[in-house]
Amino acid sequence: MTSIDLNADLGEGFGRWSLTDDEQLLSVVTSANVACGFHAGDAPTMRRVCDLAAERGVRIGAQVSYRDLAGFGRRAMDVPPDELAAEVAYQIGALEVFARAAGARVAYVKPHGALYNRVVHDAEQAEAVAAGVLLADSTLPVLGLPDSRFLVVAAAVGLPVVTEAFADRAYTEAGRLMPRRLKGAVITDAGAVVERSVDLARSGVVRSHSGRDIAVRARSLCLHGDTPGAVDLARRVRVGLEEAGVHVEAFV
Amino acid sequence: MTSIDLNADLGEGFGRWSLTDDEQLLSVVTSANVACGFHAGDAPTMRRVCDLAAERGVRIGAQVSYRDLAGFGRRAMDVPPDELAAEVAYQIGALEVFARAAGARVAYVKPHGALYNRVVHDAEQAEAVAAGVLLADSTLPVLGLPDSRFLVVAAAVGLPVVTEAFADRAYTEAGRLMPRRLKGAVITDAGAVVERSVDLARSGVVRSHSGRDIAVRARSLCLHGDTPGAVDLARRVRVGLEEAGVHVEAFV
Amino acid sequence: MTSIDLNADLGEGFGRWSLTDDEQLLSVVTSANVACGFHAGDAPTMRRVCDLAAERGVRIGAQVSYRDLAGFGRRAMDVPPDELAAEVAYQIGALEVFARAAGARVAYVKPHGALYNRVVHDAEQAEAVAAGVLLADSTLPVLGLPDSRFLVVAAAVGLPVVTEAFADRAYTEAGRLMPRRLKGAVITDAGAVVERSVDLARSGVVRSHSGRDIAVRARSLCLHGDTPGAVDLARRVRVGLEEAGVHVEAFV
Amino acid sequence: MTSIDLNADLGEGFGRWSLTDDEQLLSVVTSANVACGFHAGDAPTMRRVCDLAAERGVRIGAQVSYRDLAGFGRRAMDVPPDELAAEVAYQIGALEVFARAAGARVAYVKPHGALYNRVVHDAEQAEAVAAGVLLADSTLPVLGLPDSRFLVVAAAVGLPVVTEAFADRAYTEAGRLMPRRLKGAVITDAGAVVERSVDLARSGVVRSHSGRDIAVRARSLCLHGDTPGAVDLARRVRVGLEEAGVHVEAFV
Repeated sequence: MTSIDLNADLGEGFGRWSLTDDEQLLSVVTSANVACGFHAGDAPTMRRVCDLAAERGVRIGAQVSYRDLAGFGRRAMDVPPDELAAEVAYQIGALEVFARAAGARVAYVKPHGALYNRVVHDAEQAEAVAAGVLLADSTLPVLGLPDSRFLVVAAAVGLPVVTEAFADRAYTEAGRLMPRRLKGAVITDAGAVVERSVDLARSGVVRSHSGRDIAVRARSLCLHGDTPGAVDLARRVRVGLEEAGVHVEAFV
Repeated sequence: MTSIDLNADLGEGFGRWSLTDDEQLLSVVTSANVACGFHAGDAPTMRRVCDLAAERGVRIGAQVSYRDLAGFGRRAMDVPPDELAAEVAYQIGALEVFARAAGARVAYVKPHGALYNRVVHDAEQAEAVAAGVLLADSTLPVLGLPDSRFLVVAAAVGLPVVTEAFADRAYTEAGRLMPRRLKGAVITDAGAVVERSVDLARSGVVRSHSGRDIAVRARSLCLHGDTPGAVDLARRVRVGLEEAGVHVEAFV
Repeated sequence: MTSIDLNADLGEGFGRWSLTDDEQLLSVVTSANVACGFHAGDAPTMRRVCDLAAERGVRIGAQVSYRDLAGFGRRAMDVPPDELAAEVAYQIGALEVFARAAGARVAYVKPHGALYNRVVHDAEQAEAVAAGVLLADSTLPVLGLPDSRFLVVAAAVGLPVVTEAFADRAYTEAGRLMPRRLKGAVITDAGAVVERSVDLARSGVVRSHSGRDIAVRARSLCLHGDTPGAVDLARRVRVGLEEAGVHVEAFV
Repeated sequence: MTSIDLNADLGEGFGRWSLTDDEQLLSVVTSANVACGFHAGDAPTMRRVCDLAAERGVRIGAQVSYRDLAGFGRRAMDVPPDELAAEVAYQIGALEVFARAAGARVAYVKPHGALYNRVVHDAEQAEAVAAGVLLADSTLPVLGLPDSRFLVVAAAVGLPVVTEAFADRAYTEAGRLMPRRLKGAVITDAGAVVERSVDLARSGVVRSHSGRDIAVRARSLCLHGDTPGAVDLARRVRVGLEEAGVHVEAFV
C-alpha cells in the first residue's frame, strides 16, 4: 500500500504575533516543521506546538533558518559555513528540549525560506547545514527537494534524506519548481491540488506546466499553512489521499 | 580533604565582540558558566567554548538569562512565568547541542545578571527558572546563593542545588552580599581575595564587612572574568587554594 | 463647540506579521501612535503607515517602548535612566524620517505597554522618558494619563502634556483605570463604549465601576485596534461623537 | 593648498561590548562614521559618540548597515529594495536625533561592511541605499569608492558624492582594492601607510601591488579603528599629512 507524509510549517509566530492555525493544521499533517526562533518561533510557542504535536502523534521537525526575524528568513544571507553550521545546531538543540519535554523528539530537520532555496544549489551552505545537523545528531533525517545539493551532501555525510514535493506548485519539464514570480507558478484550484497530491503519492508523477507527465520522487508532500483557506485545502488533500487509498503517515 | 569548585562566566561575547579570555580562564576554573545567546553567546562562540571546556575537563553549565542583548541581561524584566520557563529551557537545549558534540553535557544551570539577582527574592521568577530547568532535565543541578529563594524552590521540585560564594565581595553580618553601589563592596586586593577563598573553602567562614567571622556555605567560588587582571587573580586564587591543601574540583 | 482627539496604536506588525488594520483605523482616528521598532514596527511598515497617515491628515505620534520584540513591550524592564532616555530619542528620530518624507512630522510621543504603565508611578523612568523626548525635540507634546507621574515630570521640564481616557475601560472612584485582571475592567458593550465616549468628550465625566460620576480630564480618547471588531467599534465611537455634536479633531 | 578628510568607524560597540577607542580616534579624524544600531551602536553609545564628535568639531556620518548584529553587518543579505531603503532611512533618522541634540547634524552617509561591498557592484541595492538617503535628506553626501555603482546611482539621483581611499590596502592596477584574502592585501608597515596617505592626498596617486603608480581620486582617507595599534597609526598618518603640508579637514 502506498503511503505519503504530509508536512507543514507550524509555530511561525513570534511573541504577540501568529501566522498559522497550529491546532487545526496538527489535525491534518503527519510532520510539523516547527520554527526554532531564528525566523519565527519564540520559546513559549515552540513549547506549545511540541506539546500539541506530541499529543496528536505528529512528528516534530526542526525548521532551521537564517537569523532574520525582520525578514522572516526570506532574505538569503552569506553566512560563513562555521557560523551557519553552529546556528543550525543551536536551533535544533533549542527545539529538542521542548520535543523531549512533550515525550517526543526532534525527528527531522528542514531548512526554511531563503536557506531552503539557497541549499538547493549552494554547495558551501548545503554542507554547512548538513554539518550543523551532524553536530546535533548524526541520525537525523533531513527533508528537501530531490536532486538538491542539500540532499546530495547530506547523504554523503551519512544523514538519512527524505524528498518532498509541492502539489500546489507548477513544475518544469526538468522536474524543478517554477519560480513563484512566473504566472501559473502557484496552483490555487483545490481540486487540481488534490488530484496532483494523489498522483504524486501513488505514481510519483506530476503533470508539468507544459503538459507532460514527469517523475518526481517524494516521500512527503509540503502543505502551506499561511494562506487564506490553507487549513481547508490541507484537509481536502488529506481526505483525497485517503479516499484514493493512500496511507497518510509520517516518514519516520 | 576539603574540596571546592571554581566557576566563572565564559563565552560572553557576541558576534564580533568578546569580553573574556576564555582560553586562559578555562585553564583555571573547574566549571564554566557558558552564555547561551540571550544576554551574550552566539552559536559559534558557544561551540568553541564547549569544545575547549570539554578538552580541559571543565564542566559546562548553562548561564541562562533574560532575553536582553542590549542590556547584557542586567536589566530586571517582568517576564511572565510561562515565558520565562520556556526561555530558560530554550537556552539549556541550545547549549546542550554543543556540549554533547564536544563529548560532554550540560552539567548545571546558573542564572545570569539581573535574573540571578531577581530569583534571590522573587518566588514567582525563581519557580519559573526552576520549571524551565525541569523542562530541560530534571536531574540538572542549579547554582546559586545559599538561602536564596531560587535554591529553596529548586530543591522543593527535586533539583540538586549547589551553593556558591564570592571571595571578592564584601558580606554583611547576615551573610548577604553587600550591594555593589556601597563603598568596599568589591575587594580588589589580590592577597585578601586569596585568603578569603581559602577561608571559605576550608572553614566555610568569611570575615564580614564589620569584622565578624560569619558562616557561608559554598560548594563553589565564583571568579570574575571580565575585569582587568581577572585571569591573574583567578590563577592566584587557584594556586592559593592548592597550596592551602584544598582540592579544586568540579562539584559534579 | 466641544472637541476630542481619537488616538490608536498603528503599525504594530513586524516583518511578516501584522496586528492592526492600519488602513481602516486611519479612516477613523485623528492621531496615530506609530510603533517605532522596539516592541513592533519594522522600517517598511513605519514608512507605509506614515504615508497613509499623512495622506489622510492623521497626526503621527511616536509610540516609544522598551526594547522587547519577544514580549511586545509588555514586560516592565529596569532600564537605567540614561539608556532609557537614549532609547526613547532613538525611536523618535527613526520615525521622524518617515513622517518628514511623507510631508508630515512627529507630532507627539506616547509610551507603549509596560512603559506606559510604569511611568504612571515610576518617577525615575518617567523622567527618563521625558528626557528622551527633550533630546529629540523640546516642543513635542506627550500623551498620557491625567495625574500620572509622567505628565507631571514632562510638564515640569516644559513639554506640552495631553491627557487621554479610555472609554472601554472601567474606572475606580479615584479616577484610575481598573486593573485588567479584575472582572468588568474591560467594557465590551459597544453602546456603552459610545455613550461613555460622548460623556467623556462633552462633560469630562465617566461613570465609575461603583456607579458614581467622576471627573476625568481627557483631550484624547484611546481606541484599541487589535481586538476583533476593533475597527467597527472605533467607527461607532466616532459616529456617536459626531452625532452628539462633538468635533473630532487632533489635539495638535 | 591640498586638503584631505580622514574618516573612521566609531561607536561600534553594543551594550556591554565595545570595539574602538572612540575618544582617541576623535582626536585624529575629521569625519566619524557612527554605527546606527543595525550592525552595532546602541542608543546610549550613539549619543555619547555624537556628543564627543560635536565637541571636537568632527563631522558625524551615518554608518548604515544590514540588520545583522550577530554578523556585525559583514554577511551580505538579499534585502528587497523597499525594505533596504526604509532600513537605511530609519538608521539615519535615529542618528540624527543625537547629532542634533549635540548641536550638530548628520553630515553624510556611508554604508558599512557587507553592504559597502555589495553596493560597489549591485545596482539594485545601490539604488535602494540611495533611495533611503533621499528619504531622509536629499542633500546628504554619500561616501564610497570611486567608480562604485553606489556613487554612480547616488549622483544620478542628485546626492553629493565623496570618494575615499584606503592607505593601508593594496590596490590592483585597475585601481581596485585587492581582496583581503590575498597575501599582501593589507599593508601593516606604518611608514608605508603614512607615505601612501601623503601620496593619495597630494597627488591622487598610489603605488599598485604590481608597482605601478595609479590614479585614485579620493577626498577622504579611511582609517581603521578596530585593530591593535589603530589609534597610533591613525595619529602617525595625520601627523605625516600635516608635515607634508596637507590640510586635514572634513569634506563638508
